[in-house]
Order: sequence, then structure tokens, then C-alpha cells
Amino acid sequence: MDKNILDFETVSLNDEKSALVIIDQTLLPNEIKILELKTQDEIREAIYLLKVRGAPAIGVAAAIGIYLAAKENKSASFDEFYRGFKEAKNYLASSRPTAVNLFWALNRMEKIVLASKNKQIDEIKDALRREALKIRQEDISVCRKIGEFGADLLKNSCAVLTHCNAGQLATVKYGTALAPIYIGKERGYKIKVFADETRPLLQGARLTAFELSANGIDATLICDNTASQVMKNKWIDFVFVGCDRVAANGDICNKIGTSGLAVLCRYYNIPFYVCAPSSTIDMSIKTGADIPIEQRPPSEVTDLHFKNPIAPRNIKVYNPAFDVTDNSLVSALITEFGIIRTPYKENLAKLNLLNF
Amino acid sequence: MDKNILDFETVSLNDEKSALVIIDQTLLPNEIKILELKTQDEIREAIYLLKVRGAPAIGVAAAIGIYLAAKENKSASFDEFYRGFKEAKNYLASSRPTAVNLFWALNRMEKIVLASKNKQIDEIKDALRREALKIRQEDISVCRKIGEFGADLLKNSCAVLTHCNAGQLATVKYGTALAPIYIGKERGYKIKVFADETRPLLQGARLTAFELSANGIDATLICDNTASQVMKNKWIDFVFVGCDRVAANGDICNKIGTSGLAVLCRYYNIPFYVCAPSSTIDMSIKTGADIPIEQRPPSEVTDLHFKNPIAPRNIKVYNPAFDVTDNSLVSALITEFGIIRTPYKENLAKLNLLNF
Repeated sequence: MDKNILDFETVSLNDEKSALVIIDQTLLPNEIKILELKTQDEIREAIYLLKVRGAPAIGVAAAIGIYLAAKENKSASFDEFYRGFKEAKNYLASSRPTAVNLFWALNRMEKIVLASKNKQIDEIKDALRREALKIRQEDISVCRKIGEFGADLLKNSCAVLTHCNAGQLATVKYGTALAPIYIGKERGYKIKVFADETRPLLQGARLTAFELSANGIDATLICDNTASQVMKNKWIDFVFVGCDRVAANGDICNKIGTSGLAVLCRYYNIPFYVCAPSSTIDMSIKTGADIPIEQRPPSEVTDLHFKNPIAPRNIKVYNPAFDVTDNSLVSALITEFGIIRTPYKENLAKLNLLNF
Repeated sequence: MDKNILDFETVSLNDEKSALVIIDQTLLPNEIKILELKTQDEIREAIYLLKVRGAPAIGVAAAIGIYLAAKENKSASFDEFYRGFKEAKNYLASSRPTAVNLFWALNRMEKIVLASKNKQIDEIKDALRREALKIRQEDISVCRKIGEFGADLLKNSCAVLTHCNAGQLATVKYGTALAPIYIGKERGYKIKVFADETRPLLQGARLTAFELSANGIDATLICDNTASQVMKNKWIDFVFVGCDRVAANGDICNKIGTSGLAVLCRYYNIPFYVCAPSSTIDMSIKTGADIPIEQRPPSEVTDLHFKNPIAPRNIKVYNPAFDVTDNSLVSALITEFGIIRTPYKENLAKLNLLNF
């Protein structure tokens, strides 16, 4: 891999091999392994096991994945084809419950099928291919725009704290929360980044520290519980995080630990910015309380990556993958349409987002 | 080890073997290994490597350790004996900088020597042995009292969140922050405990989860960054933590992550109680800003216990072992003399603590 990995695109389609191509993020930073996933089982498992992760990247992977299912669909009639499509869609949709991009991308793909009732099956497959690649291409331009709006909030010689990985590895390119940092770098800003390691799966240590270093950004790794101290030290000017779903009232759902960071920002008087492609905004969900939170296995906390168990056998574990941050703690949402501030309910409604 | 490990005492003296006897806490919960430490090198290393840890336990270990150094001291004259004592004292004192109990215990031992100028060397050694065992015995009764005062703040059917390990493994017996839970259990209270895993060294996962389970307490392990969510869920009635040093103004220094928890307690309106034996109160330090914070090696964050490194090589790491919590966030200090509330400066001064 190049010194500068911004050239790498995290999720793509290989037409010849009929494969979804991803980098196996569970092996980073120790091994860089490219996976070519062909079957629906492989694709669903890659999402569930976080080989591909990050709300936007999951959406793109699902779009390419469902196109590959359709491509293999041998049905002669539309009804039969659509039945197979729905089956594949439900299977992929069951991989992870929280990030709305998964459902948003699959629903966009389904709309293409439903708008093609009178077309030949091969034409529908072509249309699905174009839509999947469009979703992928949009992700790049959306992240670029978020990066530009976000960089306008930065200044030269500043320090940003981020949580989990909402970088290029969570999208096709640029990232969401890290996009302002990459665009800021293009503008010549000196930006120092503190990366929360993000237990239990350590996306901050394994992925954010990795991609920032590879991209020549000054990065410092901290344990999640050290965020309060670096803020108290007055080392942090801004917090930028990504998100997995935004409710209509501006409550945001993101990696477990985000709500605690937001509370710290309020106490230490630090802006708390949430980078949210419009694909993560779910106007059908009124408040964060209604967002389904994925509960992951206890072993992620008690055993992950460790030679020996780190906790007594059979200890009870509470291991939610995400938490919800109250809109009152969010300084601004940064979308591809610009920066949205309170009152969120009114300002999100003004975006007139289509419900996919 | 028994089902109920409260009978076990974490730090003790074996006279026959001239050994400091501890349980190796770096191996818990996977292996229960009793160490008999005889040389000053072994004892200092055990403190530095956290084989024995927790402010009160470190104090007791240091007292027994310096007694063992004195016991081996072959000097015939007081001056020579005292020179050897000072050397051993400085050596043990250099093991860890933050917990004041280490210095407090060593200073108490030195006072015994200085008060014995006209005694026989063997008499001085006897006096040192008595003082070390007195410090050890006091630790048990002080923790018991903290447990009783703390239990008065609890109620039946409540939930406590704690950070790091301030349990029996951090003291000779009972613990500080966990003592109210053990005494509460004696009183028949049903108490549920949430234990922060406490990165990087995972004392919460390895030690607190272990000793609570072994003592039949309903314990749930969470990642540090999950504290905000369990508070938001309204699952937590109280937070109890230990501490390594209290400044004269009530600022408290404790395991990294404590200050963040205190901020969360303020936001979610949960009492934040700090259990502090008077041996941790340092009236010579005006505010928390003057407490020396131990910086530990980056490898604790990037490599500890892991099969593979979890972060890119050469990533910068900020790894303070402790942080300081502003007195304004502390609901009360629980000492063996009772419960101390704001204004801390005045109320701590009223204790008339001797400066050791």
C-alpha cells in the first residue's frame, strides 16, 4: 500500500470476477488483505463480522452485494426475479440493525427493480449495476463535500479528537468525520488528531490511527477514558464524529461512547460536530429512543484479540455497539448540503429528504 | 481459592521466610499465584509492574518491604543503619509517583527509625515490624469503616458503577470503593454493580469483575465508553471510586477515566462518591494541578495482552495512569472519619491530619 492511502478505495465492484472487493478491516493494521466476495453468504458475513464497516461503506457494500445477487438470478419472469431479489435483500438487511445506510441503499436498489417491471431481466440487471455504482460514486462526492464544509469550521494549527473510525475506511473515500481533516490538509492546515481507541473492537487504534498515519496526519492514540484528560489539558479544539443514523429531531446514533464524548464537550466547552451524509438521516424515526441498537456478543469485551481471557468466565457483559446522543449536545450536523444547526427538527425537515 | 474470597488478605508478611506475600494481580483472573518477595528488587518491581497495586495496598506493601530491608540491614551503628534505611526507602519510593500512600507509609516507617536513635538496632527492627503490621491492620479497620459510612449512603436494590479496582485486591481487605458494597451485602442489601473494564490495564475486567463474582455480587462488565449509556438508561444510582491522592482543596487524583465519569455523573445527576482513607489525603498539595501524574509506556495501550499489535507501529500514544477530578464534581469524600462534603478545603482542614 502506498505511503498515501487516500488513493485506495475501500469498497468496489469487480465486474469480471462478479465480486465485491473490500479490504479486510479485521486484520488491519497488521495485515493488508484484499477480499473478493462472490456469494451472498460471504458478503453478509463480511458485514456482520465488520470486515467492511462504517455506515456509508456498509451501504455501498450492500448495493454492490444485492446487484451481484441479481446478476446471478436466473429467473425468466419479473415476478420470479423480484421474489429472488427480495429474498437476497432481506438476507443482507439482517446483517446489522443500526446503521440506516444499509436499508437506505437496499431500498434504493429495490426502487430500481420496481420501476423496471416492463423491462427485460437483463436490462433490470444493467440498471441495478448502474445504481450500485452511482451509490458508490455519490458516496465519494458526498464525503468530499462534507470534508469541505467541515474544513470551513477548522482553522490552521488546531487539534481534533475523533471516536471510532469515520475515515476513508468507513466510506469509499475521504470518510465523514475525517474528511474535514483531509481537506484541511489539502488547504495547508496543520491539524493534530487524537484518536480514541474505541473499545471493544478498537476501530480507533486499528483503523483511524492507521489511516491517519498512512496519510501523514499527526495522530496520537488514547484510550477512550483519556478523552476527559486531554480536554482538560486544553489540547482539543473540536470533536468530529461520524454517525450511523440521525433521527428527525437531530438525535444521533453512533459508536458506543459517542454520547459520553458529547457530554464531555458540553462540560469542557468544545464544539461537538457530527458528520452525517444525508443517507444516514432517517426522517421516519422521530427520536433517538426509537433507533434499534445492536447488541454484540460478550466475547468482544472479554476475549477479543487477547491471548488469555481478560475477565472471569461467565461474567455478565453489556455490549451495545452504539449509543444515542441527545440533539441538545450536538453543536452541528455536517451534511453534503451544508451545516445544519438547532432547531434540528425544523432544519432537517427543510432538506426535504426522500424516504427510501 | 474459596468461593468467598473476602477471607483472603491481599498483602501480608511471612516472618519465617522474611517475605512480602502478595497475589500476583497481573495474572488474574486466569491464574491465582501467590508470590513471596524477598529482595528489594523483587518488591520494587512488583509495585512498578502492578503485581501489587491500589493505593492502600501499595502503602502496606512498601511498609512491609522497607521493614524487610531493615531486617537484612547488618549495620552495627545507628548512622550506618539509617543510611541503609534511607537508601532502601528512596529505592522503593521511586517505583510509582502518584499514589501518596507509598510515601505516607515509608515516611511513617522513617519516623519510627528517627524516634529510635538511642535504641539497639534489633529493637529498631522490632519497632519497624510492629509499625508495618500496624499500618496493615489499620488498613483493614479503615476500609471497614469506609464501608460502613459508604453503606449508609446506599439503599436496598440499587445499582453502583465503579471504575478500576478499589476493592479488596487494592487494599488488605474490603477495599475502599467496594467496601460499601460488601458491607451493604452484610446488611442484606441487593446491590448490582457495573464495572468499567478500565483500559489500558483492565483492572476492572480482570480484578473487579473477578472479586465481585467470587464474593457473590451481581456484576456486569462494560467498556469504559459504555458508562454514558448505562447512566442514560437510568441503570445507575451511585458511582463509587477509590483514589490515589486527595489535594487539600478536595481535588482527587484517581485512575485515568475518573474525571470523565465525574462529568457524566454531573450531567446525568448521579452522586459521585470518592472513597478516600485519610492516608490518601495530602494536605501538602494545594490543588490537583500539583499532583504528579505517572506516564506509563505506550505499549500498554498498543500491545497489552494482545496476540498481535492493535495499533500501527510508532503511533504516538498518550498514556497517563491517572487523572484529576475537580472538587466541584465530587459529591462527597468517604473517609474512615466519616463523610466529608463541600467546602472541602475547610472540612479537610478540620480533620487535623498529621503530615507524614
